[in-house]
This record gives sequence, C-alpha cells and structure tokens, in this order.
Amino acid sequence: MKTYSVTELGNMDSITRVTLKEKLDLTGAEISANRLPAGADIPFAHSHKRNEEIYIFTSGKGLFLLDGTKLPVKEGTAVRVSPSCVRSIRADNPTGLSYFCIQVDEGSLVQATQDDGIISEEKPNW
Amino acid sequence: MKTYSVTELGNMDSITRVTLKEKLDLTGAEISANRLPAGADIPFAHSHKRNEEIYIFTSGKGLFLLDGTKLPVKEGTAVRVSPSCVRSIRADNPTGLSYFCIQVDEGSLVQATQDDGIISEEKPNW
Repeated sequence: MKTYSVTELGNMDSITRVTLKEKLDLTGAEISANRLPAGADIPFAHSHKRNEEIYIFTSGKGLFLLDGTKLPVKEGTAVRVSPSCVRSIRADNPTGLSYFCIQVDEGSLVQATQDDGIISEEKPNW
Repeated sequence: MKTYSVTELGNMDSITRVTLKEKLDLTGAEISANRLPAGADIPFAHSHKRNEEIYIFTSGKGLFLLDGTKLPVKEGTAVRVSPSCVRSIRADNPTGLSYFCIQVDEGSLVQATQDDGIISEEKPNW
C-alpha cells in the first residue's frame, strides 16, 4: 500500500454525500461528508452494532435526534454517539446542514498524539 | 458512559487548534480541528508508531509534505497517511489553511455502514 492516498471532494457546499473508505483505502475508519438540503431529513433512525460515530457539523443548522432527545446543532457542534444510541438528523429551513460523520470501532484507539507520534530530527524540507 | 457527548467548537474560522478525544470521551479516534494562518507552517515533520491519519482540508490552500512530495491541498482535499509516512503542512499566503485530522489505529475497522448499522423499525419521532 502507498504511504498516502488522495481524493478531491470539491467545494464543501457541492457535496451531497461521499464516503472515503474506498476512495482512500482507509483501514481504521469510514468517513462520510454529507449535506442535507433545507428542510430535509434522514428518513430513518439507526444505531450500530460495534461502531462509535463522531459527527462534526460544519455549516447550517438542524436537529440531531439522539435516543429521543432533539439536540440543536450548528456550525462547530461536535458529537460522539455510542453504538447503541438511536439517531437521526433533520436540517433547518432555509439553512440546510453540512456535516462529517466518522465511524470507528468502539474502544479501538490504543494511543494517540504525543504517545503515538514520532517527531523527525530533520526539519521539513520546503 | 452516556450514549452521546457534545461540545461546541464555534465558528470554524475561529479555531486555532482543538482536540476532541477528551472533550467527547472518544474511544476509537483522536480528532483535531486546526487552522494555520497565512504563510504559517508546522515547524517539524512527524510520523506515527501505529496510527493512520486522515486529513480533510476545509478552507484555504497550502502544501502537504508527504515523504518528500509537496502535495498542493485546498478545500475538499482528503488524504490518508500511513503511520510511517513523514509529514508536515504549510499554509499559503494570504489564504491560510483549515483542516481536520482524524487519528485511528491502523487496521482497526472491522465493519462499517450497512454491515454495522441497524435501521430502526420505528420512524424518527420529530
């Protein structure tokens, strides 16, 4: 496998739904970029068998239904959702709602950042 | 643990750097939201011991240094980086560069989306 993979999603506002796992050969996450147009909703609720999901809302406004609670969301709202939580999303009118959804195996992270990173002795060669 | 956790990052353009693992009790990922101002760079290069990283650039332009290759990046560029890849980032002037970095254990995803999701029989109660 190459040490990196690249894809171009284009302008964030142009996205309806795109998933990155296959495009980027991801092995530790599925990531989707999503946009619900004004007043639209996901027509079902869902939960997960084993995956934690993290939602990051990046523009617009809406409601996030989480085990029966209607949480108002907007640009900058970030939410962790446990596998068992039953969830759905609705976009406000006229703003619509854009968000990333990151799906990972619950409990899978062993270490991160300072504990996992290795700072190179050589400075970046720009 | 609650079935969900929420934090507010505020306007995306107001972010310098924020990490979500502790704020949201994440168990499968570390996620950071980052903004490099015009002409700024990360003053070191780094790799990882075991974590895959996914970068999603959401505004501005810049260069992503990946094992010596200078990849131009902009709004909508998404990149998977293997643990061993030595990386750094520089923002163009005057645009600056905003991005999310998602850090996960390489190879940890077991199943996703249709294979992991459970559609509820009941419709969302809006």
